[in-house]
Amino acid sequence: MSKNYPGFLPEWYDQAPPEKSYRSIFKWGDPQEFKHPNPRLYALMKSTFNMTDEDFKSPQKMGLEEVSYHLPISLTPEQVAEFKKIVGEENVREDEYARLQVAYGKTMIDLMRLREGIVENVPDLVIHPRDKEDIKKIVEYCNQEKINIYVYAGGSSVTRGVECTKKKSITLNMRVHMNRVLKFNEINQTITVEPGMTGPELEKTLNNAPQLFNAKRAYTCGHFPQSFEYSCVGGWVVTRGAGQNSTYYGKIEDIVVCQEYITPAGVIKTAEYPASATGPSIDQIMIGSEGAFGILVAVTLKIFRYQPENRSKFSYMFKNWSDAVEAVREIMQGEFGFPSVFRLSDPEETDIALKMYGIEGTIIDKILELKGFKKGEKCMLLGLADGHKSYTRVVIKNIHRICKRYGAMYTTKFVTEGWEKGRFKDPYLREDLQDFGIMTDTLECAVSWDNLQQVYEGVRGFCKSRPNTICMTHISHVYPQGGNLYFIFIARINEIEEYLDYQYGILDSIQKYGAAMSHHHGIGKMTAPWLEGQIGKNQMEVFRALKRHFDPNNIMNPGGTLGLDLPEDKKRVVRK
Amino acid sequence: MSKNYPGFLPEWYDQAPPEKSYRSIFKWGDPQEFKHPNPRLYALMKSTFNMTDEDFKSPQKMGLEEVSYHLPISLTPEQVAEFKKIVGEENVREDEYARLQVAYGKTMIDLMRLREGIVENVPDLVIHPRDKEDIKKIVEYCNQEKINIYVYAGGSSVTRGVECTKKKSITLNMRVHMNRVLKFNEINQTITVEPGMTGPELEKTLNNAPQLFNAKRAYTCGHFPQSFEYSCVGGWVVTRGAGQNSTYYGKIEDIVVCQEYITPAGVIKTAEYPASATGPSIDQIMIGSEGAFGILVAVTLKIFRYQPENRSKFSYMFKNWSDAVEAVREIMQGEFGFPSVFRLSDPEETDIALKMYGIEGTIIDKILELKGFKKGEKCMLLGLADGHKSYTRVVIKNIHRICKRYGAMYTTKFVTEGWEKGRFKDPYLREDLQDFGIMTDTLECAVSWDNLQQVYEGVRGFCKSRPNTICMTHISHVYPQGGNLYFIFIARINEIEEYLDYQYGILDSIQKYGAAMSHHHGIGKMTAPWLEGQIGKNQMEVFRALKRHFDPNNIMNPGGTLGLDLPEDKKRVVRK
Repeated sequence: MSKNYPGFLPEWYDQAPPEKSYRSIFKWGDPQEFKHPNPRLYALMKSTFNMTDEDFKSPQKMGLEEVSYHLPISLTPEQVAEFKKIVGEENVREDEYARLQVAYGKTMIDLMRLREGIVENVPDLVIHPRDKEDIKKIVEYCNQEKINIYVYAGGSSVTRGVECTKKKSITLNMRVHMNRVLKFNEINQTITVEPGMTGPELEKTLNNAPQLFNAKRAYTCGHFPQSFEYSCVGGWVVTRGAGQNSTYYGKIEDIVVCQEYITPAGVIKTAEYPASATGPSIDQIMIGSEGAFGILVAVTLKIFRYQPENRSKFSYMFKNWSDAVEAVREIMQGEFGFPSVFRLSDPEETDIALKMYGIEGTIIDKILELKGFKKGEKCMLLGLADGHKSYTRVVIKNIHRICKRYGAMYTTKFVTEGWEKGRFKDPYLREDLQDFGIMTDTLECAVSWDNLQQVYEGVRGFCKSRPNTICMTHISHVYPQGGNLYFIFIARINEIEEYLDYQYGILDSIQKYGAAMSHHHGIGKMTAPWLEGQIGKNQMEVFRALKRHFDPNNIMNPGGTLGLDLPEDKKRVVRK
Repeated sequence: MSKNYPGFLPEWYDQAPPEKSYRSIFKWGDPQEFKHPNPRLYALMKSTFNMTDEDFKSPQKMGLEEVSYHLPISLTPEQVAEFKKIVGEENVREDEYARLQVAYGKTMIDLMRLREGIVENVPDLVIHPRDKEDIKKIVEYCNQEKINIYVYAGGSSVTRGVECTKKKSITLNMRVHMNRVLKFNEINQTITVEPGMTGPELEKTLNNAPQLFNAKRAYTCGHFPQSFEYSCVGGWVVTRGAGQNSTYYGKIEDIVVCQEYITPAGVIKTAEYPASATGPSIDQIMIGSEGAFGILVAVTLKIFRYQPENRSKFSYMFKNWSDAVEAVREIMQGEFGFPSVFRLSDPEETDIALKMYGIEGTIIDKILELKGFKKGEKCMLLGLADGHKSYTRVVIKNIHRICKRYGAMYTTKFVTEGWEKGRFKDPYLREDLQDFGIMTDTLECAVSWDNLQQVYEGVRGFCKSRPNTICMTHISHVYPQGGNLYFIFIARINEIEEYLDYQYGILDSIQKYGAAMSHHHGIGKMTAPWLEGQIGKNQMEVFRALKRHFDPNNIMNPGGTLGLDLPEDKKRVVRK
């Protein structure tokens, strides 16, 4: 479509980033892959931010320069030698590029710093452990020498989870070697993998189980976060992540069956039981520990039958937000099973989504207009149903029944297919917009149904108090008791301080209006200052007691993770 | 039937136990309610145990005597006075009967001791806290004075969970006052209750939500353990219990949304979110803590729509165990939803069940015989499906399809109704049998599908190595990854030592063949010696670190709970 577009369109940067450049580190995904804003989105940017074509002529802060900084190594030569002895010389990297490459994730503050060439926190060495025996030796040695350990795999953290905020540090890059299948168990429907395996590697393995393992069937992992293509299993687990299909398949804490961690206090290896009543759940202590207790070296996940032929797609348009929220709640409480993807966009997101999925201006759009579904009011619900075909049929039929009852119009599966096309690609848009000084970022939280509206209004109230700012909001990852509220904000912000002020305001609002600080991104070092304000001092003290047990020398992902070692004056408590 | 039975039948004890007698403490359930063995079961007992009618003429160790023992109080008069000051004189009991009443649960060792008049471990005082403020004061005072705290509610523990194994102790009886509804939230579909509420009280409240809370609908708690009628919500939570319908509704750890505990380290109160990614799960640390970390004072549970009109019942007979197990696994992995009750009996249980439910000798039984379903081989599967009617229909249809494929015969809903009649009543049988020296007890464990057969054979191998012993086994509480293996053993054992030898052997076998020591009974003080052998030292040390944090003076349910303070020589490690 853009090729035939008659007006001006920016020359979006369309090349793989130069080797060793900052851009090669912050660019999302495949270096050769791009998703440029379509003309409608471009027009929206201009009108929203009072920008002209002129503003899109000179890209800026593109990070095309070669990485260069000087941060001295604080490890001694003996220590460096010892690491080389443990993993082999070829598995230790000391160069500046390698050190920076594993230091940051993919949140806006990471991107902004890299675009500015600001390098603050990098490890002294990057190590590629070959197996869990390597990791045992490394953890033991680091504990003895008080060397800090950070862990990197997919690098898609949006919480500064992997950032090396302490000196005298190493980062273990799990992606290089620790990405293997350890066991495939068709009887139990489980697979055991190492943490550095990516989403697509895992999914491909399972889809091809008949060929690879002589299995009776093909399987799926059921876990597809937006970062799917460039995130790793380990990150999913240690942050308590969720895939977009979690409404059926569950969050990662529902999917994990058992795990193995190397901690300074020894190995924690749980066994493969479907459930048990043998004291507190060790698994649920380790899931969400974000590298602060130990290093995940193996995880056993539930797997599910791969039946794409049964997948049903649906989309509905509601006249307004409150009817739509009621319908979604009714569906989740209806006890006829759950859809897998289930996403309700608020009016602002609906209007932009219709642009992005190419629905705006089509016949569907016209019919909606005629039937009184108004811009700025209407809300789009879309989703998929997975499972046995008799099951998806029941789910779909009941969703239809309830949507109709709440005055919704069925808007075909094409809308859903529009969303599907973009589901893993939308992050590519960030680079283009930011090249022209427009920042796109997201924050999310968990709410029960009865405080959803308060959080929705409170957080959006803050977001929109900044003039000329887009805030697209949706509910996804839904439960009978509530769901996830997800905010995508787009603003013309190009300075770190201005960005942080805005972000802090949103996080303050999330806490103030009573949501959980995260539903699936995790806490990391970014949201850490708000955690104690949400869960309270007594719960933080439980985390700290566990930390003291597992890691008495505070060498595991130290310097802010989960707020475990945050000084009092860094905590932000804005409870209502 | 028994009225018209021509042969001899024992004179089962058919009166409410005498007031203040031992029997009034150990008798199951309603003092006025009985379930006597039917003639077929009686005949089976005689033939299995080589007993004659003569053996059933003189009941023994009936515990009809008035409770009488002398165990001095180790609290000082000042301490007793302080408790009276906190809760009021009327809420403190010091008499022998009251102290014994809350000291034991309902496992065989409890019953045997009470029948023998053996009183070992009782608290100095029984306190009836009125609310959580009372409990805060009590915990604070006990922590300061190093007085041990035990908690009692339903008293149905089968793991010595409530037993006061330490001197200088109090027991809080939560049943008396702390049994209220704190909040009903129809928007979130949750209810918040105090821990001393019984199952029937909770269920009645929810069934009557329209009248009581002006709710739009009636609800159910979805949690129906065999002890339902005499167990309390608090016990369900702190032991990680499961109801018989858990295959659809989930175990209690899936049903709990948030909780409040009073611990020596302060109040732990989690918030009502459907899910979150804010570090390790505090809820999953407290669930299963069995009173060793703190006292549960409020819990918020998911509730479900009450739709008994949609309930479907089914039963099937399989030709053999291995076909039946395969079918059950296939059903659980079929992704068409789950039945709520799902119970597969092994050949031994099947034959006895058909006697007990009155199926033996009926037309169904005859047809089975003709079709080649053999005694000692055939296996019965029964269950219920709950939910929306379109959902239960799909579940039932798919179960039917799979059962047929594995050669099963549909045996109507009458078999299931036979089971339903007995589901909460079977515990009443214990008293009758034990009056004539026959012991009935149960142990259970959790297994993944791939170690199910090994555990089944290994544990039964031990059970049946004792001559003249019944061991009925079933799989229930099933998951795509495995299930619960439940053993009901009946033997002519009348001496504590002989019983314990046998029980220890079974627990040894459960550990040895690789099962989790419990799926839903919990660990308590009874199974505690085996816990470390199952989960390993490093996991036990995590529990101990939490214990030190919450309860540095070891005053919370001390003396064996979860093996936290067990001496080395008490641990039993029999791993294969």
